[in-house]
Amino acid sequence: MMTPPDFDQKFCDQLEELFKWRRDVRRFKTDALPKGILNTLLETATLAPSVGNSQPWRFVKVLDQARRKAVRDNFEACNQDALKDYDGEKAETYASLKLSGLDRAPAHIAVFCDTKTKVGLGLGQKTMPETLKYSVVSSIQTLWLSARAKGIGLGWVSIIEPDTIKKILDIDQENWDLVAYLCIGYPEEEHDVPELVRNGWQDRLPLQEMVIER
Amino acid sequence: MMTPPDFDQKFCDQLEELFKWRRDVRRFKTDALPKGILNTLLETATLAPSVGNSQPWRFVKVLDQARRKAVRDNFEACNQDALKDYDGEKAETYASLKLSGLDRAPAHIAVFCDTKTKVGLGLGQKTMPETLKYSVVSSIQTLWLSARAKGIGLGWVSIIEPDTIKKILDIDQENWDLVAYLCIGYPEEEHDVPELVRNGWQDRLPLQEMVIER
Repeated sequence: MMTPPDFDQKFCDQLEELFKWRRDVRRFKTDALPKGILNTLLETATLAPSVGNSQPWRFVKVLDQARRKAVRDNFEACNQDALKDYDGEKAETYASLKLSGLDRAPAHIAVFCDTKTKVGLGLGQKTMPETLKYSVVSSIQTLWLSARAKGIGLGWVSIIEPDTIKKILDIDQENWDLVAYLCIGYPEEEHDVPELVRNGWQDRLPLQEMVIER
Repeated sequence: MMTPPDFDQKFCDQLEELFKWRRDVRRFKTDALPKGILNTLLETATLAPSVGNSQPWRFVKVLDQARRKAVRDNFEACNQDALKDYDGEKAETYASLKLSGLDRAPAHIAVFCDTKTKVGLGLGQKTMPETLKYSVVSSIQTLWLSARAKGIGLGWVSIIEPDTIKKILDIDQENWDLVAYLCIGYPEEEHDVPELVRNGWQDRLPLQEMVIER
């Protein structure tokens, strides 16, 4: 066993700043990322917890421009459809929001969960099989924080149809479910306040509304 | 807008160490946590990303000893049932694994998702409603990392029946789904290798088995 690292107060304060300045980025510079950085980030992502050490995360680097365009088209169609759910001022605000960075981010990664992986032998999943997908989400949050610390932004696109994206990407593994589609690149701007707060869509709520005792 | 912080190489290296030394803890000291630290950790958890800024995380501090015992009993029953899925050497290994810290951890938090929250007005959830629960998972991973940096361990218990736990905790909000049951306290030991790897249950896999290109 190695000696555990000492995470001092300075580190803890910086970590809190990292959480505060991690943003869902939709406005990217088109600058390329340094060679190899995506694999470094993915290695870090696999340090996330996974149920029974099942490591169910599957990462698809989307390089092909035709596939990227098809993903963008699916987003545009879903976004137009979602707009119909809002009226008046909210519809105007929704229409004005920029909700994805699919047009400019240099790197696209689709993240899947292998929902039938034998790795980990099913430990911990019997009563809560959804923990497999939760493990994949933990890997994304890990990647997100590591990227932000390096000055790299990430945007999570969810206004897409998972089955369509799976077809676009020609994923024939039946048990792979799409968890997220990620845009990665250098952000145009840095903020410590979410874009949806800045745009008047939804404020942050106080903690006491989310905590009860039993 | 504030000036973005500069996350230097030293911080990035320490962050990577944090990811490596974050563990799913099952062996806790019974020492109490400092007063107020749970709320500090929960405040940090709410810095996590959430779909449409929906902030669907709901935290239940489980203080009552009778409720805690009922949760432990449910875990024991589920764990005995899961043991039947394994034969021979794997059954022996499973039986020898310590899979929860419910007996000693000073703090228990049940984390729910409000699956019908109006906060965020549904933005980003239409085609992937599961992103609400994924937001809750991101808050847990955020809490986990913040706790570990402060020397506090977290164990995620999933070998439980969500509906039973909801009843035990007398949660009558119909739309709240259990995402995780967390044990929090000071760990007996620190490791940079998962307990399931150390115990021969499941090794880590190389990254190249989890990445493809399209």
